[in-house]
Amino acid sequence: MKIINVDLGADSYKIFIGNHLEEQIKNFIATAKFSRRALIVTDKNVGAAFGAKFEKLLRAEGLETVTVTVASGEISKALAVANDIYTAAIEHKLDRKSPIFALGGGVVGDLAGFVAATFLRGVPFVQIPTTLLAQVDSSVGGKVAVNHALGKNLIGAFYQPRAVFTDLDFLKTLPPREIASGLGEIVKYGVIADADFFCYLEDHVDQILALEKNAIEHIIARSCEIKADVVSKDEKEGGLRRILNFGHTIGHALEEETDYQGYRHGEAVAIGMIGAAYIAQALELIDQSVVERIQRLIDRFGMISRARDVDVDGVFDATFRDKKTVDGKINWVLPEAIGKVRIGRGVPEEIVKGALKKIID
Amino acid sequence: MKIINVDLGADSYKIFIGNHLEEQIKNFIATAKFSRRALIVTDKNVGAAFGAKFEKLLRAEGLETVTVTVASGEISKALAVANDIYTAAIEHKLDRKSPIFALGGGVVGDLAGFVAATFLRGVPFVQIPTTLLAQVDSSVGGKVAVNHALGKNLIGAFYQPRAVFTDLDFLKTLPPREIASGLGEIVKYGVIADADFFCYLEDHVDQILALEKNAIEHIIARSCEIKADVVSKDEKEGGLRRILNFGHTIGHALEEETDYQGYRHGEAVAIGMIGAAYIAQALELIDQSVVERIQRLIDRFGMISRARDVDVDGVFDATFRDKKTVDGKINWVLPEAIGKVRIGRGVPEEIVKGALKKIID
Repeated sequence: MKIINVDLGADSYKIFIGNHLEEQIKNFIATAKFSRRALIVTDKNVGAAFGAKFEKLLRAEGLETVTVTVASGEISKALAVANDIYTAAIEHKLDRKSPIFALGGGVVGDLAGFVAATFLRGVPFVQIPTTLLAQVDSSVGGKVAVNHALGKNLIGAFYQPRAVFTDLDFLKTLPPREIASGLGEIVKYGVIADADFFCYLEDHVDQILALEKNAIEHIIARSCEIKADVVSKDEKEGGLRRILNFGHTIGHALEEETDYQGYRHGEAVAIGMIGAAYIAQALELIDQSVVERIQRLIDRFGMISRARDVDVDGVFDATFRDKKTVDGKINWVLPEAIGKVRIGRGVPEEIVKGALKKIID
Repeated sequence: MKIINVDLGADSYKIFIGNHLEEQIKNFIATAKFSRRALIVTDKNVGAAFGAKFEKLLRAEGLETVTVTVASGEISKALAVANDIYTAAIEHKLDRKSPIFALGGGVVGDLAGFVAATFLRGVPFVQIPTTLLAQVDSSVGGKVAVNHALGKNLIGAFYQPRAVFTDLDFLKTLPPREIASGLGEIVKYGVIADADFFCYLEDHVDQILALEKNAIEHIIARSCEIKADVVSKDEKEGGLRRILNFGHTIGHALEEETDYQGYRHGEAVAIGMIGAAYIAQALELIDQSVVERIQRLIDRFGMISRARDVDVDGVFDATFRDKKTVDGKINWVLPEAIGKVRIGRGVPEEIVKGALKKIID
């Protein structure tokens, strides 16, 4: 088992990564000074597989739990669903020290986290991420949100969990495409911050795809460590945290242009990373071999690396609708080498469109 | 003009108190590094009286403003109304550096603040409180919220404004009962923290009721100073901040029992302070003369000091539904003298009910 500290002063917390984390969860609850009542938020798929066992674990620690099970998928990241959870919390008489546990993937974590951030102006929040993507990305860093009819994640907060329990056993139940989506974000950490980690990924593709314990524990832990390091230096996305957005400007645009039906998030990010690498190449920050190295690793992990059913102009326009855009300007995250990125503002339209042409069929 | 600093580290801000604050608002905007687009949230009454002038002021400073005007009254503190404001913000292409200005009383400030806290995970927020109650209470301290169908202020956050502009000119348009409501909270600051301030209030009742500039500026500034001091020591209500709740346990219960139709907030708090003083007397923390001194000042300010249309048992039960209750226990804020309070837990039922009998007709 590995433990990553996320250092955020009074809001610091630990990420526990390993198999069979029941003991860690028990010890955490025993010292957390929660009230007696607790809420579990999960979705239909995860709830059916793991809900009863998790409830039993919490009840054995003396918590009176109630579980809210939402529909699986993005549709549950909505204010109306959040309102249903508030209602359950009020009816169950949760108070300010009552914890909310998110048992599920990114949707459940973002939704339950938003409710925890806003119910009674903030109650304790605990993440139990069950997908690889949630384990390396959304469960770390405190971004919580629901969607608005006009855009994703437009309503939210920065709100840190009290602890994250990343149990590798969950991964065995995931379909390969879901694993691949998580690997997109993992490759990202190598490119933005750690050339050695990128090499490790290149050297362990087979072990990772086979979910071998040592390899998978290492890459999740290292990913969390890199993200935690960035977040602890810039909790609220004032500057450095932007580097986590590598691949996301084009990735979000691809997701939006396909109404979030075309790609898993990590898949869109993977294509977006290649696009951003092409921009960096056009700006002479890197040469072709670096672009190819990123693309090859993405290919080997079984991710799609080219976009379909979109056109260059549509994706280009969509990049400006990203919520990180300020006064109409995009902060492009561009590789200078494997392991190092910089922010580029005001990249000329023809360079962005040239890169998009190379990644869109 | 007076300036109060609210000292909250990186989230520190200033409260400007005086007449004609246009220059201060201009100077603030000139240095605030906002994006070009800005949102103004106001209600029908305030918007009709002051909206056009305020828009003009912001536009003269180069901001492109859009104004959302909500219905006056508590009905607008709802997630559905917040959602309408998100929609306006998105359609107007606000970004993370676009300010939201709250021009109005407590409802507008709480609502606009909740939107500012959650739109794009937080955008700059500026308060222009237009009622005495908002000027001395809700605009200071960063509590923002909307109501849930099952209870008031159950959905919210701690989110600090970038600045507060408290213009005394607004007060001239308020009906006397609205002024009296604000005076309830002002008396509270004297009881919980400053015996000299309580004496000042006793000595200047006529000047205050006549809204004489020096007196009104002083009592607003001193109230903000006391609240700012408490909040800067305990931003998120871990301990000390509880003293601000003096009068509110019974006050909230009275409001709830009358479906928020029976009393202005400050009126309910005034009655609640007298009730809490009677509890303190029964516990022999203070003697009868202190209760009478509080009651007399409330009477002289023209506030009602007794509750009607409720019964002792109903109000008693309602005290347990307060969101500050943890594991069923109430933290009573009880005076030990004018200027000093303590927290009392586990006050016996018969003492609470005995005090309630003395304040309910």
